[in-house]
Amino acid sequence: MPLVERMTVAGVGLIGGSFARAVRDAGLVGEVRGFGRTAANLAVAHERGLIDHIVTDEAEAADADVIVLAVPVQTCAVLAARFRRYARASTVLTDVASVKATLVDQLERVWGAARTIGAHPIAGGEESGAVAATPDLFQGRRCILTPTSRSDANALGLVRALWEGVGARVEEMTPEAHDAILARVSHLPHVLAYALVRALAGRSTAGRRILDYAGPGFLDATRIAASPAEIWRDIAVTNRRALGEALGEFRSVLDELARLIEAGDDAGLDRVLGAAADVRRGLGGKR
Amino acid sequence: MPLVERMTVAGVGLIGGSFARAVRDAGLVGEVRGFGRTAANLAVAHERGLIDHIVTDEAEAADADVIVLAVPVQTCAVLAARFRRYARASTVLTDVASVKATLVDQLERVWGAARTIGAHPIAGGEESGAVAATPDLFQGRRCILTPTSRSDANALGLVRALWEGVGARVEEMTPEAHDAILARVSHLPHVLAYALVRALAGRSTAGRRILDYAGPGFLDATRIAASPAEIWRDIAVTNRRALGEALGEFRSVLDELARLIEAGDDAGLDRVLGAAADVRRGLGGKR
Repeated sequence: MPLVERMTVAGVGLIGGSFARAVRDAGLVGEVRGFGRTAANLAVAHERGLIDHIVTDEAEAADADVIVLAVPVQTCAVLAARFRRYARASTVLTDVASVKATLVDQLERVWGAARTIGAHPIAGGEESGAVAATPDLFQGRRCILTPTSRSDANALGLVRALWEGVGARVEEMTPEAHDAILARVSHLPHVLAYALVRALAGRSTAGRRILDYAGPGFLDATRIAASPAEIWRDIAVTNRRALGEALGEFRSVLDELARLIEAGDDAGLDRVLGAAADVRRGLGGKR
Repeated sequence: MPLVERMTVAGVGLIGGSFARAVRDAGLVGEVRGFGRTAANLAVAHERGLIDHIVTDEAEAADADVIVLAVPVQTCAVLAARFRRYARASTVLTDVASVKATLVDQLERVWGAARTIGAHPIAGGEESGAVAATPDLFQGRRCILTPTSRSDANALGLVRALWEGVGARVEEMTPEAHDAILARVSHLPHVLAYALVRALAGRSTAGRRILDYAGPGFLDATRIAASPAEIWRDIAVTNRRALGEALGEFRSVLDELARLIEAGDDAGLDRVLGAAADVRRGLGGKR
């Protein structure tokens, strides 16, 4: 018997679509409904077996035991408010957004705090849409849950069981700790990659387009800058406070490196670059 | 009949070792001698068939038709000066360094301008040493040659033939154009990756190590920060003028992005991030 009779996934893109298919494959949910704004993407999701049914009506979407918001973060609360009037009192609301503090606060107000459980699976990539969804996307990946003192224990247990059931390593922390960590390890690198591409785009020297000379190192370093702008604009704006702190920390280090380079300080650079290289090698993740 | 009777590769690491093996495999060189400071690495190079002989004596190393300097850029001119007294007048000197203007100028003074040909194969990776060398490293990759008005046409033709013979796409430009391009497309991204790792290394929040949460995007973005510090310290210092300009350009763009984020300017961010994402997607290079 499935854990959940009916789930609606709002936003059947890379994350939402992968989760929909993964819970179906694992037999965790009896029926998965897909809701979204783009008919073509929903059709792909249905053809690929990510969802059982396409629903276009908000009342039908909201008639579920669990609703998963898998849309850009600034759209989550808007959509929650539209679903609320049609949902049951018992319907659990969760999401997959990369920012938590502001969003969880908004969702708790709209939905009621007890049955609102923030979640963030740390998975994904620069691909997007139902066409890129794959049921093993969360295998072995972290999924961070951010319950608050107001969360219902059963709702939390249900959301945890769903993520564990699709292979994720579930961990709980406060929304604020989540945002501080992700600002640094994810949001900052995205901003830097977008900035690097923007700084070079269209630039030429001696009649040669600089980006024609991009090698594998540059392509690796900027791969995340191919991620959808609408998703990352929302993340950056919603987590602007923690991201601003992270940017400040990064700029201090960059200024330090720029000074060492300008001064031709071989010993200082050996120390700083060598320590960073050691740390990076320790993280692994070779191609 | 080989193009070159005897070649010495000084520095049998990833680039030097791969080139040594590639010219041997292509039958371009009769005998390849390997010279270096680390006996263990030379032994690996010999065992792996990258070189025919290990030479430890400077006179033996310099007794060659072509000498390839494949050592950190600040070591190149030092080594050239040590070899010069033993070399023939006709010996062609070339290198594989990532910085050209300052180095080519130094090498021309030490070696004589006619038979000094700067070269930079755009290949490599964060791996290093003879153990990582592979003869197909240059297949389809660019190799930039930076002859000057003083270069001998035959010496240039020989170096070009060697690189074309190992599969590289050879292109000529001035040392200054090379340094302006590489500062932006290679040296700047390395500095940013090292700075990003340094900014996060050892940092914790709410008792959690931030780098424990690094996902595939972070690992891609910082892969080049695992590159050997001694090589990149030399590159950064030697190309400090062009790199300083590139850092200034990058910081302007980062400041612009930071302002848009701080202001919550959705439309401005859509425009900037969207344009960068389009450019990055156009570069391809998916995993």
